[in-house]
Amino acid sequence: MARPHIVTLTTDFGLVDHFAGALRGVLLDVFPEVRIVDITHAIQAYDVLDGALAISESYKYFPGGSVHMVVVDPGVGSERRPILATVGEHYFVAPDNGVLSLVYAQAESVLVREITSSHYFRQPVSSTFHGRDVFAPVAANLAKGVDPAKFGEEITDYVRFAAPKPKTAADGSLRGIVLKIDRYGNLITNIRASDAPQLLGNDPPPFRIVIGKTEITEIYSHYAQAAPGEAFAVVGSMGFLEISVNRGAAAKQLGIVKGAEVAVRMGGAAAAGS
Amino acid sequence: MARPHIVTLTTDFGLVDHFAGALRGVLLDVFPEVRIVDITHAIQAYDVLDGALAISESYKYFPGGSVHMVVVDPGVGSERRPILATVGEHYFVAPDNGVLSLVYAQAESVLVREITSSHYFRQPVSSTFHGRDVFAPVAANLAKGVDPAKFGEEITDYVRFAAPKPKTAADGSLRGIVLKIDRYGNLITNIRASDAPQLLGNDPPPFRIVIGKTEITEIYSHYAQAAPGEAFAVVGSMGFLEISVNRGAAAKQLGIVKGAEVAVRMGGAAAAGS
Amino acid sequence: MARPHIVTLTTDFGLVDHFAGALRGVLLDVFPEVRIVDITHAIQAYDVLDGALAISESYKYFPGGSVHMVVVDPGVGSERRPILATVGEHYFVAPDNGVLSLVYAQAESVLVREITSSHYFRQPVSSTFHGRDVFAPVAANLAKGVDPAKFGEEITDYVRFAAPKPKTAADGSLRGIVLKIDRYGNLITNIRASDAPQLLGNDPPPFRIVIGKTEITEIYSHYAQAAPGEAFAVVGSMGFLEISVNRGAAAKQLGIVKGAEVAVRMGGAAAAGS
Repeated sequence: MARPHIVTLTTDFGLVDHFAGALRGVLLDVFPEVRIVDITHAIQAYDVLDGALAISESYKYFPGGSVHMVVVDPGVGSERRPILATVGEHYFVAPDNGVLSLVYAQAESVLVREITSSHYFRQPVSSTFHGRDVFAPVAANLAKGVDPAKFGEEITDYVRFAAPKPKTAADGSLRGIVLKIDRYGNLITNIRASDAPQLLGNDPPPFRIVIGKTEITEIYSHYAQAAPGEAFAVVGSMGFLEISVNRGAAAKQLGIVKGAEVAVRMGGAAAAGS
Repeated sequence: MARPHIVTLTTDFGLVDHFAGALRGVLLDVFPEVRIVDITHAIQAYDVLDGALAISESYKYFPGGSVHMVVVDPGVGSERRPILATVGEHYFVAPDNGVLSLVYAQAESVLVREITSSHYFRQPVSSTFHGRDVFAPVAANLAKGVDPAKFGEEITDYVRFAAPKPKTAADGSLRGIVLKIDRYGNLITNIRASDAPQLLGNDPPPFRIVIGKTEITEIYSHYAQAAPGEAFAVVGSMGFLEISVNRGAAAKQLGIVKGAEVAVRMGGAAAAGS
Repeated sequence: MARPHIVTLTTDFGLVDHFAGALRGVLLDVFPEVRIVDITHAIQAYDVLDGALAISESYKYFPGGSVHMVVVDPGVGSERRPILATVGEHYFVAPDNGVLSLVYAQAESVLVREITSSHYFRQPVSSTFHGRDVFAPVAANLAKGVDPAKFGEEITDYVRFAAPKPKTAADGSLRGIVLKIDRYGNLITNIRASDAPQLLGNDPPPFRIVIGKTEITEIYSHYAQAAPGEAFAVVGSMGFLEISVNRGAAAKQLGIVKGAEVAVRMGGAAAAGS
């Protein structure tokens, strides 16, 4: 497929050090026409699930033929394999540690190759910075138009994990967790509309969402529907149920951290007596 | 006018989440030739005045025909209108919440349209992320050369606010506030040279600037004129009076927060006895 | 030499304010074809050595003909000179305060000019923001292809400092310091392989590295060789000896700050009794 010369970057390098800068230099040196686009460099250090969420929520907005580098790589230098995944019209280069799991989960077609053609690498390959020495030169060559098959053979035993899914508890409530807290302090849960069709459909019946010591009984379509400081539920831009506070930070106001449990119980006053 | 294919970004999305990444993907998907340039993504969350300052101090350095996306949007999803403003040779897309007020204030010609041509939007339009679904596709089409008139009709009742201005107090002193604290801890006040021509002219007479518990009696042309650790006044790069500490952080050293009052009193020893 | 139209940015402007945005505007206004690439904007405020490290570890990965702007400039507005350095195939524009010292130290050929051709500057030149008014227009013109000789005469008394080097102490141990703490909390020392060839060669003899209250006796080739939480030594991607903790932050776990001393002593059990 045509290549728009785009390489996106999703890393846990942070923005303070020169690491992303060095990597951009390699991309431009290998392919001067490359267009480098940041998704984020602030994935939590070593947090493969955080990286998996960020890339799965972003890549689909880019034009077909884009190359996505995802470098969250606690196993750098070890035997973990570098991989090249073709997913629909998109290319991904990443360590084979599951960081593409949520991309695979959404996709109709996935073809994963182990990157073994070391003549594409920057030599000598360091044992601690494969972003610069392995993934960047491969990504630049892909963006330039090199055939994916040139980088290595297909594998089928690539690492993938399932995202944590909400479960129905013995008391009939739906139990999810806070997957992520965003910049505004919104609590992004792992509950999708398909997990709670009644709640997230039109004209939902009475419900209670319990998170920490807070009980939420309102679901709005946008933030400004709530009074300033009011906690409420909303289906956010990632398609997940979020707990928000209008013009405030829900995480701080409600005292909630990533990983916290959230329970959804349908039904009104009767249930409230429990 | 000619379009240099530039879209600048000024948002409160932060740099940790994938939001800016998703938005960049949409821009590139709509217009593969677009050149995306960050002004900042670290506008304080929901702080329309902070966004207004950043864009008004930046856009004028870009070439004519640039498109500036300004997304500080606490009212996203509500009835607040999306607008397209043509200001001199520059285009702006933003929510109609006053975030362009300081751009309008500097301009000779302003034409504002309500963006209503929803066929340009990314469908379905979410209720919480218009940066991705509304503003990005409009900006990309503008950068591509689409006539602004295609996006909607002119309006004249767009939202604008006046920046806080310094006032003369009963005792003859000029009272301003700290508009912003920058990365170095400099205190950027809302006092311009035209507000205090004596003070900020050549060879100023004696004066005192009082901020918190500190009295400043020196105005320098650049930071290194001061002794390390000395607090002094300077006309900064934004054209405002700033209080600085050479090689230190004035905000921390003087214990001053955004919004603090600053008083300028012309005259020397006599006034000092008050 | 051919110019790939690249201008890299290494500054202490931070990513919160609009400063980098204004500077990017000037670059694009002077040379619409410029390709702006961030190395980092998070050099510690006023920290010339921190800037020197970042640029010296990054520029070499970029294609020849790249222009590197390095703006860490506590003396802005004073008599300190703006300079243009040609180092091998790379161009640098920076204040003459030593921020290029580590670039010079690695180079075979260095030619430094004082930038005096003020008709290239953005007028009026502010006294506090030469990044925008002096360095950006010069860098954009260089990227465009203007001959370096047009900007000013060669000088030989440019400022340079030596990076802090490890020393051999009276007891025979090698004493270095922590030059930098990176995003992962790794402690990057100033000890290179050439300073400790025994330690950093193949099959090193027994040794002890003492830092703070911690004694390290293992050197690994990559992070994942260590048990989670184990402190160990590694030669990092910058070529320096680093102290790391697998999946942890060494700086925090070991209680070490930038500038801390590190001692390397060859020899095993006997030495351990001291």
